[in-house]
Amino acid sequence: MKVLIIYAHPDKQSLNHSMLEFTTNYLKEKNHEVKVTDLYAEQWKAGIDEDDFLNHEKGSRLYAMRDSGSAYLAGMLSEDIKKEQAKLEWAELIIFQFPMWWYSMPALMKGWIDRVLTQNFAYVSGKEFENAPLAGRKAFILSTVGVPEEMFTKGKLGEIDEVFFPIQHGTFSYAGFKVLPAIIGYSADSRRSNCFEKTTEAIKERIDNIENIKPIY
Amino acid sequence: MKVLIIYAHPDKQSLNHSMLEFTTNYLKEKNHEVKVTDLYAEQWKAGIDEDDFLNHEKGSRLYAMRDSGSAYLAGMLSEDIKKEQAKLEWAELIIFQFPMWWYSMPALMKGWIDRVLTQNFAYVSGKEFENAPLAGRKAFILSTVGVPEEMFTKGKLGEIDEVFFPIQHGTFSYAGFKVLPAIIGYSADSRRSNCFEKTTEAIKERIDNIENIKPIY
Repeated sequence: MKVLIIYAHPDKQSLNHSMLEFTTNYLKEKNHEVKVTDLYAEQWKAGIDEDDFLNHEKGSRLYAMRDSGSAYLAGMLSEDIKKEQAKLEWAELIIFQFPMWWYSMPALMKGWIDRVLTQNFAYVSGKEFENAPLAGRKAFILSTVGVPEEMFTKGKLGEIDEVFFPIQHGTFSYAGFKVLPAIIGYSADSRRSNCFEKTTEAIKERIDNIENIKPIY
Repeated sequence: MKVLIIYAHPDKQSLNHSMLEFTTNYLKEKNHEVKVTDLYAEQWKAGIDEDDFLNHEKGSRLYAMRDSGSAYLAGMLSEDIKKEQAKLEWAELIIFQFPMWWYSMPALMKGWIDRVLTQNFAYVSGKEFENAPLAGRKAFILSTVGVPEEMFTKGKLGEIDEVFFPIQHGTFSYAGFKVLPAIIGYSADSRRSNCFEKTTEAIKERIDNIENIKPIY
């Protein structure tokens, strides 16, 4: 299987980085192919602007959606975007790995989504969801949170699938990805929580059973 | 009333920019004070990293939450963050204005939230929601979307408050803000939709009745 990991964490000594190494190694051990986009390491540009569209006349009005779509068709997207789009076309499974910040992904990863998932590449008017150009690829979130699991089942914070609705439904599913359940490392900041052990166990299981996991959307 | 507008759109000729001007002028006309943070114009840095925390030893482990909290208490946050925190302390109403991209805010605005709402400033362990340090301020989303309103009431896309759950509940409400209903300009890309007229009418009404609008959270 061809696996693309989109990864955002600022610290190479972090739990998240250890999990990234674990996942990469385990995938290779099982004879999968892996590519990683490390957004902090690559100093990913977060904001869409006119420099993304090489066919855009400087200073003229910018329509992020339309302009991204016509730049895609003309082969005039900036190089960093093209490179990521090529990886996405190659991939059969995409893992989005990030620490949860404010009920969502870090800004750099949102910037990857904003800039890479252009019109005509990731969605075509009238061809969203199962008919989108990238349809059929699998995707899931691999994330860590500081609080214990109960906070997202019994607490004031909401259910985890409510929290991830804009990502899992509004982004992955909209772009035609089959959304597999998120893997979450809870109590990630506590040494006693065995977060690394539990999460890597879940990653192994996920990879071993990737063909049998039912999509949630 | 003291009003802070956090604004993210890459194009000064956009509908969003006209709405920003309208809102700013109308507020002043009604004798409110206004400050604007224009994230694209200020080339806002989106990614949290160790440079945000001036008391962080370079190359040592980074814990975004804890390190932001201790840098805040020590007065050692980077200047751009401090400036925004001062504006937030000043404000009684905060408007987050952005075009909806992928069911959420543009990456630059997520970067404002990630970096400015530090521990001990915007939340204190055990003092979330109504007991948070900034509690009592009002906040709402002012956004535009390309599709018609029906898409968020009858369509596959989900209800608008589901879409904004991570922002309105997980961020605003968590930080103690009283969340007023979002104002959305639908069919923003269509000339026939009168999006500007409808939305500015809603903005006027909101400002005129700001004391009487019931929070949704």
